[in-house]
Amino acid sequence: MGNVTIRILARHLQLSAATVSKALADSHEISGPTKKRVLEMAAALNYTPNPYASSLRRKKSRTIAVILPEVADSFFSQAINGIEAIAQDKGYHVLVCLTHERTLKEQAILHEMLGGRADGILISVTSETTDPASILELQEKGVPVVFFDRVCEGIDTARIVTDDAQSAYKATDHLIRQGCKQIAFLAISEGLSISHQRIEGYKQALTAHGIRFNGSDIIPCTHDAEENLRSLKKIMRQQHRPDGIIASVEKLAVQVYQACREENIRIPEDIKVIGFSNLVTAAYLNPALTTITQPAFEMGRAAASLLFKALGNKSFSLSQNIQVIPSELQVRDSTH
Amino acid sequence: MGNVTIRILARHLQLSAATVSKALADSHEISGPTKKRVLEMAAALNYTPNPYASSLRRKKSRTIAVILPEVADSFFSQAINGIEAIAQDKGYHVLVCLTHERTLKEQAILHEMLGGRADGILISVTSETTDPASILELQEKGVPVVFFDRVCEGIDTARIVTDDAQSAYKATDHLIRQGCKQIAFLAISEGLSISHQRIEGYKQALTAHGIRFNGSDIIPCTHDAEENLRSLKKIMRQQHRPDGIIASVEKLAVQVYQACREENIRIPEDIKVIGFSNLVTAAYLNPALTTITQPAFEMGRAAASLLFKALGNKSFSLSQNIQVIPSELQVRDSTH
Repeated sequence: MGNVTIRILARHLQLSAATVSKALADSHEISGPTKKRVLEMAAALNYTPNPYASSLRRKKSRTIAVILPEVADSFFSQAINGIEAIAQDKGYHVLVCLTHERTLKEQAILHEMLGGRADGILISVTSETTDPASILELQEKGVPVVFFDRVCEGIDTARIVTDDAQSAYKATDHLIRQGCKQIAFLAISEGLSISHQRIEGYKQALTAHGIRFNGSDIIPCTHDAEENLRSLKKIMRQQHRPDGIIASVEKLAVQVYQACREENIRIPEDIKVIGFSNLVTAAYLNPALTTITQPAFEMGRAAASLLFKALGNKSFSLSQNIQVIPSELQVRDSTH
Repeated sequence: MGNVTIRILARHLQLSAATVSKALADSHEISGPTKKRVLEMAAALNYTPNPYASSLRRKKSRTIAVILPEVADSFFSQAINGIEAIAQDKGYHVLVCLTHERTLKEQAILHEMLGGRADGILISVTSETTDPASILELQEKGVPVVFFDRVCEGIDTARIVTDDAQSAYKATDHLIRQGCKQIAFLAISEGLSISHQRIEGYKQALTAHGIRFNGSDIIPCTHDAEENLRSLKKIMRQQHRPDGIIASVEKLAVQVYQACREENIRIPEDIKVIGFSNLVTAAYLNPALTTITQPAFEMGRAAASLLFKALGNKSFSLSQNIQVIPSELQVRDSTH
């Protein structure tokens, strides 16, 4: 059977479409017996209200959108679980939209959201994002936006972040205390807020230990796995190879293991490794990986809670609402 | 600025809403100069067509929905990447909706889809799903549905699956050839098609080697990690502990490592382990994990390709279209 519309219902009932519509909305203008006839026919014809049409009337989608780079990273998959835990309680649907680190894709998704597909947005921006215009536009339309983890400067709204600078400081400090003298920092986009913060923490720890910062120890990585592996293997073959390495995202930590294996470099004897990672397998790797573990689930929960506060109360301001949930250094064999 | 509607545009232009609407739709009924005025005003007031309203007119959302249990599993995150690769080419948005293995949540999501939120659906059902009614309803409304990996019996549509029975056969055969005499099979919901297939393959391999099948070697696992860990540790403490183990989903493989470590059982000396898993860290685990690696990305691509064929051509039939893409046994140290 095709789509049963109010018009089709009306024809079967020999009523006007307006009457059917009012009856379905339980309007006081329509008599009890008529409502009953309409509901029976609606059930018989398997009528479903078109959510686009009813969203148009209610101006509510009862949906929130989560926009993030990818799900093949434990941080994001755990954050989604935190967000869903809250949304479930509120009876909201969650749409997950992936940008694959492309700012154009992100803009297209944000543009789609302009017209009411979601009542509110949680976003962790791409590593390419510099232009806040699409997000500002949503805010101007009254759609609340909350950042988690990766924020976009120039937008005044709530941000749920972790202590990126302090975590990188702790990671660097730990490597130095374990005897490292030359620590490489594997970075993704330096334009990204979290990347910038982590590099700052790394530099501060070096300074605190009287080690001179060397720009060439910041290794720019990309989202191309093969390209990263090539650079990492090149580093492992250098005469003055680093004796410590900080992988600022999860994938890079796994690639360090791969490069070390292929170049016969032993972890931790030849090089000590720390990763910013929520990998569930971290403790079972060979050797077990020392991690900066981010509070992914809690960050997702906190971001969703703030968004629902804004959705529930028009006068609640998200402005300058910053929550910092600390990450944790978990020492394992890779830095022994 | 609030939502600018066609009515507001019309008021500013002192035109009728119908004229504005036609001008925006580039109708031949409206003169060039009027169209120009309307477009200029629309730009000035930052008018965005409401996608709900225009979807209602076009009856197209240019969106496909992917409904699956979770993203914290490499199979699903890699399948999503395959799906997005195709959708991107077609200029479609992808909404990812998570069921968290709950059939009620799945039904609520499917119900939401009834009215046109997505033009087509790709679904991998929950381990609880038994009732095909919600999916049948979508098909009756003309929304094409394609299954990938986990299918629901009783629905006639395209299915992209892997060779689950043969893969489990290969895994079991490999363990027997490595000397295992008592092989435990860690199963999730036996009602699930893939689970059933995998158990069949396991039984067939036992039979082929003249080993009697023992019902108590099928270990039912749940989605509660702590509960699974308790059962696994109990198994490890048994007097007649299995000497081989097949984890039928990724998470269970990681939990076997955890249970073995906590109970001081050595892999592979005391027990050999194979996991159905696409873990990127499999080769770097201690010991490296022998896996049945599923063609996740390819399955996502194939499922999306079929869905777009159906969306592009009303006469293309998804019925009885079954594609089997084989998995691969990757032998590593955990079965040595």
